[in-house]
Amino acid sequence: MASIFPSRRVRRTPFSDGVTAAGVRGYTVYNHMLLPTMFHSIEADYRHLKSAVQVWDVSCERQVEVKGPDARRMIQLLTPRDLSKLSPGRCMYIPVVDQMGGMLNDPVLVEVTPDTYWISIADSDFLQWVLCFAGTGGFDVEVREPDVSPLAIQGPGADDLAARVFGEAVRDLRFFGCKRFEFQGQSWIVARSGYSKQGGFEIYVEGSENGMAIWDALFAAGQDMDVRAGCPNLIERIEGGLLSYGNDMTRENSPLECGLGKYVSENQLETCVGGRALREELDAGPKQMIRAIAIHGVTPPHDRAWPLLAGDRQVGQVTSAAWSPDFDTGVGIGMVARSHWDAGTKLVLETPEGTVDATVRAEFWI
Amino acid sequence: MASIFPSRRVRRTPFSDGVTAAGVRGYTVYNHMLLPTMFHSIEADYRHLKSAVQVWDVSCERQVEVKGPDARRMIQLLTPRDLSKLSPGRCMYIPVVDQMGGMLNDPVLVEVTPDTYWISIADSDFLQWVLCFAGTGGFDVEVREPDVSPLAIQGPGADDLAARVFGEAVRDLRFFGCKRFEFQGQSWIVARSGYSKQGGFEIYVEGSENGMAIWDALFAAGQDMDVRAGCPNLIERIEGGLLSYGNDMTRENSPLECGLGKYVSENQLETCVGGRALREELDAGPKQMIRAIAIHGVTPPHDRAWPLLAGDRQVGQVTSAAWSPDFDTGVGIGMVARSHWDAGTKLVLETPEGTVDATVRAEFWI
Repeated sequence: MASIFPSRRVRRTPFSDGVTAAGVRGYTVYNHMLLPTMFHSIEADYRHLKSAVQVWDVSCERQVEVKGPDARRMIQLLTPRDLSKLSPGRCMYIPVVDQMGGMLNDPVLVEVTPDTYWISIADSDFLQWVLCFAGTGGFDVEVREPDVSPLAIQGPGADDLAARVFGEAVRDLRFFGCKRFEFQGQSWIVARSGYSKQGGFEIYVEGSENGMAIWDALFAAGQDMDVRAGCPNLIERIEGGLLSYGNDMTRENSPLECGLGKYVSENQLETCVGGRALREELDAGPKQMIRAIAIHGVTPPHDRAWPLLAGDRQVGQVTSAAWSPDFDTGVGIGMVARSHWDAGTKLVLETPEGTVDATVRAEFWI
Repeated sequence: MASIFPSRRVRRTPFSDGVTAAGVRGYTVYNHMLLPTMFHSIEADYRHLKSAVQVWDVSCERQVEVKGPDARRMIQLLTPRDLSKLSPGRCMYIPVVDQMGGMLNDPVLVEVTPDTYWISIADSDFLQWVLCFAGTGGFDVEVREPDVSPLAIQGPGADDLAARVFGEAVRDLRFFGCKRFEFQGQSWIVARSGYSKQGGFEIYVEGSENGMAIWDALFAAGQDMDVRAGCPNLIERIEGGLLSYGNDMTRENSPLECGLGKYVSENQLETCVGGRALREELDAGPKQMIRAIAIHGVTPPHDRAWPLLAGDRQVGQVTSAAWSPDFDTGVGIGMVARSHWDAGTKLVLETPEGTVDATVRAEFWI
C-alpha cells in the first residue's frame, strides 16, 4: 500500500492528534477528510470491537445544516422517506436521490431545532445538491457545513463507557434515538447509532476546539475497560450488511436496488425529487438487488467491483469483501440480477487472483 | 505517513496498473479516485519534471458531461465567465460559484460538439450541482460522468513525445487550444494544458479499456527521452502559482479573492448564478486575495492552513507550502487581507513547528 500524502484539501479532524497518537496505520479519504481504517490490523481491530469498546473518529460524517422557516418542508422534498415521525428525539436514515431515482447519498437526518436540521452525510458532496435546490427553488433557508464532528463509541462496552462520561440516562436512548447531553459545560446531541452492529453511540461534537477534551475524557474514563481507538471495520460491517455509499451503491443504483425500499414512502412519490422514477420502479420491481454473498475461498484486497458469473454470463458484482474469522468464510456484499438473487443460488466470483465459488444468502451474518 | 486503504469507493483508474508498475510511493484521493503524488521523492520528481518529460495519470479530473439542446445556454448560467469565445478548438478555465459567489469548483470547459460539453472538474462533486440545476430549471440536457480519463504529458520534452505518438501537427496547438488526434483507430481530444508550468498536453482518453494502450505507447515512444511516470508536483505547482481547489480556495472564497477576476465577465453578472454577489464584491473590492508568499525558513509538511500574523493579529493564512531547491526559499500560496497584501509586506508565519518570517511577493516564481 502506498502512503497518503498530506495536504489541507484532505482535511484533518478535531481528533487527528489523538488518532495519530493511537498509532493509526491506514487511512481512507471520505468527504475530503481523513478517516482511519486500521490501527493494529483489520482482524485485531475486529476482535477488539466485538469484545470491548472503541472510540472512533468519524468526523468525516460531515453535516449539511439546513436552517430556516422552510427547512423541514424542503428536506421532505429531497427524500422519498416520510418524515412526519422525525422529532428532536429521533434521527432517521434517509435515501436521497436524483431525478432518475439514483442514489446521491444515504445520510442520517437529525432535527436540531424545529427550524434547524443536520443531514449527516456519506461520501459525496450532497451539500452542492442541497445548496442548488434551495437557491433555485427560492426556499427561505440557509445551507452550510457547520463545525460539527461526530465521534462514535462502539462495541459491547459502549453503554458503560458512555454512562461514565454522560451519566446513566444515556443508557435509556433507544436505537436511533437522540438527545442532548452535557460535557464540560457543552451540550451535545448524542444518538444511539453508528456504523457497526456492536451497539453504541455517536456524539455530534460541536466546536473543533472541544475535540481532544472529549477524546481524552473517553480514554480516561475507560482505562480499565481496554478502550482503544478504532474505526469502521471492514469485516464487521460486511458481516452486518452495513452498506457503504461509493462501494456498494452509487448514483447508478436506486434505493430499491439497495434494499432500502422500506425508506421509500408511497405517500411522498407525488412530490419528492425522483418520485416518478421510484414509482415506476416500485410498480415494475427492481431489476437487481443488494445481497449477502458467501465467498468460498480466500478474498484478496478489494479495490474494484468483482463480476459475479452464472456460467459465462455476468449476473452481478461483489463490491465489498473480506475474510470473516468468526464465520470462517469469505463475506461479501453484492448486487445481483433478479434472475439469480434467490437465496442459495450458486455463482462464480471473478477476482483479480482467480475465480472462486460463491453463494447468494438470504441474510447477512449478524 | 499512514497507508491508504484499498476500496472500490476510492476508485482505480484506467492507468492504475501502469502507475503501480512505475513504483508510485504516495497517493492522494481526488474526486473519489486515486491521484499519485510521488514516485521517487518530491524533489527528484521535481528535477525530472523540469528537465525531461513525464506522463501523468490525472484521471481524477473527472468530466461532467452536459449534452442536449440547452447545454450551452445552461452552462453559461453556471459561470460568470463569458463563453462567447468558446469553440471546439479552445478550452476555457471557468470559475463556478454558488448564489453567494463562493467557489464550487474551478474546472476547465471543453466543447466536444455544439451540444455536448465536458466540465473537467477539480476536487468537488460539481456533478450534483449541475444535475440539480438542470432538473429544477427544466433544461433539456442530460448530465452524466462519461468514461473519460485525462492523461497528461508534461515537461520540456512534452512536444517531442506527443509528436511521436500523435504526429507533428500536435505541436501547432496553442495554449488551451484543443483538437482531436488519432491513436490506434481512436480519436481523442488533446489539449495544450496541464497542471504544471513546464508545458505539455492533456489527452482526454475515452474508454477505460484503452488506458494502458496509450500509457504503454507513450513510454515506448519516449524510451530514449528518459520519460517517467509523474504527477502534479507540490514544489513546482507552488512556484508557478497553480491554485488547488480545497487547498488554496474553498467555498468560503470568491473568484476575485482567488485572483480570478479576469474570468468574471461583467456582461454575465445580471444572469449567472452568484452574479449579484460578485457585482457587489467587484464594486467594493475583495477583502483578501491570493498572494505568493516567500517563506524564510524550512517548511514542515503542510496538512492544514497556517496563520499569517502581523504582530499579534492574524491577517491571512498559507494553504500550500514547500521548500524550493531552485529558488532556495520556502514557497507558499496564501490568502492575505487587503491591509497587508502589498508586495514586500513582512509577516510572520505560524507553523506547527514554530514561527518563521515570510514576505508577500508581487508574483509567483515562474
